[in-house]
Amino acid sequence: MLQTPGMFMRESLAHRPPTLWRYREALGINNPSNTVSLGEGFTPLVDYAVNGQVVLKLDFLCPTGSYKDRGSTVMISKLKEWGVAEIIEDSSGNAGASIAAYASRAGIRANIYVPTSTSAGKIAQIEMYGADLIKVLGSREDTTSAAFDAAQGMFYASHNWSPYFLAGMKTAAYEIAEQLAWKAPDWIVTPVGGGGLLVGLQLGFHDLLAAGFIQRAPRLAAVQASACDPVYRAWRARLEHIPAVDKGPTAAEGISVAKPVHGKAILAAIRESNGIVTTVDDGEVWTALETLGRQGIYVEPTAAAAPAALRKLHQAGIIGRDEGVVVMLTGSGLKATDKIVERQAAQAITYA
Amino acid sequence: MLQTPGMFMRESLAHRPPTLWRYREALGINNPSNTVSLGEGFTPLVDYAVNGQVVLKLDFLCPTGSYKDRGSTVMISKLKEWGVAEIIEDSSGNAGASIAAYASRAGIRANIYVPTSTSAGKIAQIEMYGADLIKVLGSREDTTSAAFDAAQGMFYASHNWSPYFLAGMKTAAYEIAEQLAWKAPDWIVTPVGGGGLLVGLQLGFHDLLAAGFIQRAPRLAAVQASACDPVYRAWRARLEHIPAVDKGPTAAEGISVAKPVHGKAILAAIRESNGIVTTVDDGEVWTALETLGRQGIYVEPTAAAAPAALRKLHQAGIIGRDEGVVVMLTGSGLKATDKIVERQAAQAITYA
Repeated sequence: MLQTPGMFMRESLAHRPPTLWRYREALGINNPSNTVSLGEGFTPLVDYAVNGQVVLKLDFLCPTGSYKDRGSTVMISKLKEWGVAEIIEDSSGNAGASIAAYASRAGIRANIYVPTSTSAGKIAQIEMYGADLIKVLGSREDTTSAAFDAAQGMFYASHNWSPYFLAGMKTAAYEIAEQLAWKAPDWIVTPVGGGGLLVGLQLGFHDLLAAGFIQRAPRLAAVQASACDPVYRAWRARLEHIPAVDKGPTAAEGISVAKPVHGKAILAAIRESNGIVTTVDDGEVWTALETLGRQGIYVEPTAAAAPAALRKLHQAGIIGRDEGVVVMLTGSGLKATDKIVERQAAQAITYA
Repeated sequence: MLQTPGMFMRESLAHRPPTLWRYREALGINNPSNTVSLGEGFTPLVDYAVNGQVVLKLDFLCPTGSYKDRGSTVMISKLKEWGVAEIIEDSSGNAGASIAAYASRAGIRANIYVPTSTSAGKIAQIEMYGADLIKVLGSREDTTSAAFDAAQGMFYASHNWSPYFLAGMKTAAYEIAEQLAWKAPDWIVTPVGGGGLLVGLQLGFHDLLAAGFIQRAPRLAAVQASACDPVYRAWRARLEHIPAVDKGPTAAEGISVAKPVHGKAILAAIRESNGIVTTVDDGEVWTALETLGRQGIYVEPTAAAAPAALRKLHQAGIIGRDEGVVVMLTGSGLKATDKIVERQAAQAITYA
């Protein structure tokens, strides 16, 4: 059997615990004693009772409540290996909470910059991990600038820039393939903001193809909020890079990124996979959130963007009802209590 | 090898997915097609960096954010098998959210009674699962009475009464034993309110002993809040049953139960395991919550009662530093954002 450099062996997996570190050979950590783990990954894949062949990847069932733990566990392990003592990170919330958790566990001091609009639940969580939290008045982009300026002379451990964070994201592809008995689905539907998960999926499936573990890669459906859709616009205009957009407010705060760092890589991943980009508005997001809830699954609005998009892609016939689909559910509903309570109150007033 | 009736075979486990349904033979569901699952169980066991041989069972990493999913998945599967269409449940929040989720997934209508003091995050979650939520002005006990009264002619699916809910709790013991290579720890430290988890652990280890999978069972350390300590008082007084107490307010809302349903079984489980009962006050709970946070682990106050108690038991020499200990962490910190934000605000004022 072919094996790419730094790739795991399928035969090694049977007796390894169900965490993403079962793929450790692909994750670039030299000394296993540097691994900073909270048992993350190997999240459940469960049926979605819609008209079609759809399974949901419950990737919010990671230790901090979001898929970002895939990246953090690998990146922080590498920083520990390098002996880094203090880092700076900027985030709309989930990556900040995730990096704060793993940095704490590694004994690395973390300074986390977030926009003031971040959900109260995410802010409380970051503080409880013992990180230094800096709230930035302004947009997600202003937050990045503030963190970048502050990082003069300190380690800028941005999840959007680190190749080790990206290596962690590839494990989502490895898991999906292993859980489907080494067959890729026809499609993967995923929210896209900074693009880490999308690009990680594409790289991960590329690894699996190169190793001969699967015979073809899935098509990637990238989902954006219609209020902030730079990837969609660039893809429609057949550009090679992604210009910034003026964005509006959206409940899908986790993908509200006006200019993704990985612009070229995002567009390349979508094209190479013969994929597509689509957008959803907040009404569609909330409807999908409620539909998921009725199946016992509670996610934050950003995560619900993916099933919202699938519904439209099914209706448009772009994804066939007979095609196998994996929908990535990226963040827990418990992360967004304030926004969900606000929505429920508004609904109650409407129908009273 | 011995095998108790309805026990799983160790040899069958190797190729089963990492959920609690890997122990399906012990769970009493006749037809596998009735299984209502969200991929729950097989939660991580990670090191706890304290002075001692301690691991943490991250049991809050279940689909609804609490260990209650162990019971709900089995109980709701059985109700589906029985063709039950509508149920009533009362809860301080976590069990209600869990049962609402699994009922929704099974297509069973759920009426969930909770005290008005329940965390906003838990209430929003229950509503999002599509359950009918009834808020009861008064105590946890008033809530049970209200649910009991309403259940005339309807199915009272109380997690405190169902043997199938309890069967689900046993899987925590099975998992711990399997994850520790079929050795039980010396001690398990667990919060106790209604007693389901404690009694389930004892029954589960009993099964493992009877099957010859382990050679001895662990000692159980039951933890209560000092503001509501009926188990502690009954145990100290060497009673066979548990009288009700007048309880005060506590941050550990999940174990604030004035008169546990399983009184006799709780006391028997503690005595048979050569165990102990101890109490912690809210100050100790918050300190433990912060200590866990600094290790990247974010739980709700109820869950932090267990490591708070371990600290005291270590200091008192009741649990030796050389003894192997598993600490059950039962609920996610994301469940208690309102209480944690309130605490952080109070701390900020104190130190400003």
